[in-house]
Amino acid sequence: MRKIQKILVANRGEIALRIMRSAKEMGLQTVAVFSEADRNALHVRFADEAVCIGEAPSSQSYLRGEKIIEVAKKLKVDAIHPGYGFLSENAQFAKMVEEAGIIFVGPPVKAIETMGSKLAAKEAVRAFGVPMVPGTEGAISDVTEAKKIAAEIGYPILIKASAGGGGKGMRVVENEAELAEQMERAISEAISAFGDGSVFIEKYITAPKHIEVQILGDKHGNLVYLFERECSIQRRHQKVIEEAPSPVVTPEVRKALGEAAIKVAKSCGYYNAGTVEFVMDSNLNFYFLEMNTRLQVEHPVTEQITGIDLVKEQIRIAEGKPLSFTQNDLKILGHAIEVRVYAEDPANNFLPDIGKLQTYKRPQGIGIRVDDGFEQGMEIPIYYDPMIAKLIATGKDRNEAIERMKRAIEEYQITGIETTLGFCKFVLEHEAFLSGKFDTNFVKQYFTPEKLQTLPDDDAEKLGAVLVASLLSQNHSNSNGTTSNKEHIISNWKRNRMVKR
Amino acid sequence: MRKIQKILVANRGEIALRIMRSAKEMGLQTVAVFSEADRNALHVRFADEAVCIGEAPSSQSYLRGEKIIEVAKKLKVDAIHPGYGFLSENAQFAKMVEEAGIIFVGPPVKAIETMGSKLAAKEAVRAFGVPMVPGTEGAISDVTEAKKIAAEIGYPILIKASAGGGGKGMRVVENEAELAEQMERAISEAISAFGDGSVFIEKYITAPKHIEVQILGDKHGNLVYLFERECSIQRRHQKVIEEAPSPVVTPEVRKALGEAAIKVAKSCGYYNAGTVEFVMDSNLNFYFLEMNTRLQVEHPVTEQITGIDLVKEQIRIAEGKPLSFTQNDLKILGHAIEVRVYAEDPANNFLPDIGKLQTYKRPQGIGIRVDDGFEQGMEIPIYYDPMIAKLIATGKDRNEAIERMKRAIEEYQITGIETTLGFCKFVLEHEAFLSGKFDTNFVKQYFTPEKLQTLPDDDAEKLGAVLVASLLSQNHSNSNGTTSNKEHIISNWKRNRMVKR
Repeated sequence: MRKIQKILVANRGEIALRIMRSAKEMGLQTVAVFSEADRNALHVRFADEAVCIGEAPSSQSYLRGEKIIEVAKKLKVDAIHPGYGFLSENAQFAKMVEEAGIIFVGPPVKAIETMGSKLAAKEAVRAFGVPMVPGTEGAISDVTEAKKIAAEIGYPILIKASAGGGGKGMRVVENEAELAEQMERAISEAISAFGDGSVFIEKYITAPKHIEVQILGDKHGNLVYLFERECSIQRRHQKVIEEAPSPVVTPEVRKALGEAAIKVAKSCGYYNAGTVEFVMDSNLNFYFLEMNTRLQVEHPVTEQITGIDLVKEQIRIAEGKPLSFTQNDLKILGHAIEVRVYAEDPANNFLPDIGKLQTYKRPQGIGIRVDDGFEQGMEIPIYYDPMIAKLIATGKDRNEAIERMKRAIEEYQITGIETTLGFCKFVLEHEAFLSGKFDTNFVKQYFTPEKLQTLPDDDAEKLGAVLVASLLSQNHSNSNGTTSNKEHIISNWKRNRMVKR
Repeated sequence: MRKIQKILVANRGEIALRIMRSAKEMGLQTVAVFSEADRNALHVRFADEAVCIGEAPSSQSYLRGEKIIEVAKKLKVDAIHPGYGFLSENAQFAKMVEEAGIIFVGPPVKAIETMGSKLAAKEAVRAFGVPMVPGTEGAISDVTEAKKIAAEIGYPILIKASAGGGGKGMRVVENEAELAEQMERAISEAISAFGDGSVFIEKYITAPKHIEVQILGDKHGNLVYLFERECSIQRRHQKVIEEAPSPVVTPEVRKALGEAAIKVAKSCGYYNAGTVEFVMDSNLNFYFLEMNTRLQVEHPVTEQITGIDLVKEQIRIAEGKPLSFTQNDLKILGHAIEVRVYAEDPANNFLPDIGKLQTYKRPQGIGIRVDDGFEQGMEIPIYYDPMIAKLIATGKDRNEAIERMKRAIEEYQITGIETTLGFCKFVLEHEAFLSGKFDTNFVKQYFTPEKLQTLPDDDAEKLGAVLVASLLSQNHSNSNGTTSNKEHIISNWKRNRMVKR
């Protein structure tokens, strides 16, 4: 056991700030690293010490593992937290950190390696009886064999080129009659695209939900699960709205998911915080996808419903402390939703937008948490992920969390840049979302740019209301002895118009 | 049962905004009223409609009940929420609201009346067996009788002039030997001060804690308690730091407190949200003080530890809905602390400060809630309570809530005006506060202005660290191929200096 007194956060933006907040609450000294583009960033201002590590492109700064370790050694840092992205799942970096005598706030190098390879991960997990999407273990090319396997796993099935990627050589087969023809097409596509005709067959999950389980494990073999997150609302295969718990998962399935996640963690000797991702069909059957060996972007929803500060737990685990709670101590205390506020234009296929946050006023008050790394007047740098903020709403149940999120979205004032806020409002009001019966196809199925409403602004309705109110104020103020005349009222109205949003 | 669709908030500042946020989450239309001084206030901007009701002094605006009701009628408002202060405990106003056919979001008029009179309140409560500070029921003047009573209730005792106020005619008596002399002095003081020599005797509570219980009751006779708040940290007899639950109350005492509070509520036929205040001695004996028939400033700490939105419950109760939960459904889910950020100078006897919020940046992130009514650039009006904000920190236990609050206080950036933030940090770090063994004498006992540290700023230590880091950056950047020269480094340092807080 080694007490961490000074921690370097090898990251930027909201997650660097978020990690440093918890570190500071624990009484630790914090060190930020930053690129030239982030010189004025909030994580740099928050840290006790801050070191520039290079030019804006990540390859010249945030991905320079050796440089970061050098800084950590010079500043006598005890531990490095990698955040997410950048070096967070780089086993080589984790190894170098430990070889430098610095604590890596994350899992063992071996676990990063195993889970970093899809093949190695599946192999490790299989031995623990974790459900995986049924299918062929190796490549096949024989139609008769394919028919036999397909009959076993049940239609629809998916044929995938083993060398595949980008949807090439992928075919959905609805029934046996189609199989031979579709398989031949898949093989010939695979040959022409990759020069390799071998294909896999697996069960095709219709209406797939992305469900993931947060786990925590210490260095003494204790492992717990902190329930699931529902992350099916995605655009461009990336999450944009997440919530915990899932609106469809039952207590029995929740327990089964949690126990499966623990098995995955055990299969690679895991400790620290990690996330086990599953695909779930509409009958709540779930299958292992992969394990992310780091803190996730969407970790706050889990913090909100469990009351556990995941970053603090990560740091305590890294120090060698045993978990201070057991599975039975963990309860779901409410419902939380996160929307990611991206600098993107939903009306234009979610293309990243750049520019300056001319107005930037965060929502406040009950049940609202904003994790961000910007403030009014700042530019969104073009070099990094275009996420401006994570807006998290917590309520006693899902309905309250949704209503609160809608209130917060309307309260958020961002001008100068397009964001995903209006899109998120559209989702939150959609009946498929409200029912919980949505899957990763939500955006494709339901969203078109025409569905976007503008968020409230100086709209006509509101101006009307203020005008009425001002006149009312005039009509009655004389009888009550306050100073008032026509000119005064008009100026009232103008000023109100100015201040109304 | 009448569904509320439009609500007027007869208040200003943070509480008006806080009420409107919950109303908006419930889908209600909101109406703000404002004085000339509050024309640009956030509650005015947030509301769907806003009406100016008069000049800055409260007597000419926020206390004009008739004017407010007139506005409500004109705008076809279903309900009026009075907030706290102003008209919130004015039985006459509540009566007028109801006579105008508008729902008053608060308790029955009769309950406001009963609890508004100390004498009537004590009489009502006595019949329900609620513990009250032991003492004489009527005035006495005979020393022999006084000795008998004092022996019954036990020393120390307090002699109070029945016509008293401001400490005049008040005497603490430690033992029987002192009684005769002190009583004579109290009587003669009372005669010369008030022309009335009758005195009361009651038990003197040493090391008194101010403990209050939040209750909720519907119009169908259901009553629940939402546990206690500890509000003993006061300056000038006004609360400045509150927390829930109390660090010293045991589960048994908590239950007894809750049940006593329910009895008080029953004694006056209470419904809606209310707070029953008790004084508690160091042996956890508690005695009824008074009942506040409205939402309290410090209600958020209760919301944070129960997950219940008290304003929403108030509105639902006012609509006639039964409570949707029972006593058994209520659990303490964590620990919450609120510090009131006042525009006051703790170094100068907490005198109110006025001026402009030149810098105003709120803390953010996990476990932090800020309820306020200002933003950067605004003036603190001199006409009203000088509270700028309520900063609320929630953690899984008291220790985490304290550490989080300290982090948030350091993150809060307010310039242009003196605040109580530094004083609150002093309290949070004081061993009496940490131990939970503090009482309403805390400020008198422990605080002197010299104890105030300045909050972190551009201090020497931090500048030193940045300088070191910048030099380090220079030493090694050449070998790593990034552009760097002496001049560049110096400008780094200057820029860092600028952005460092």
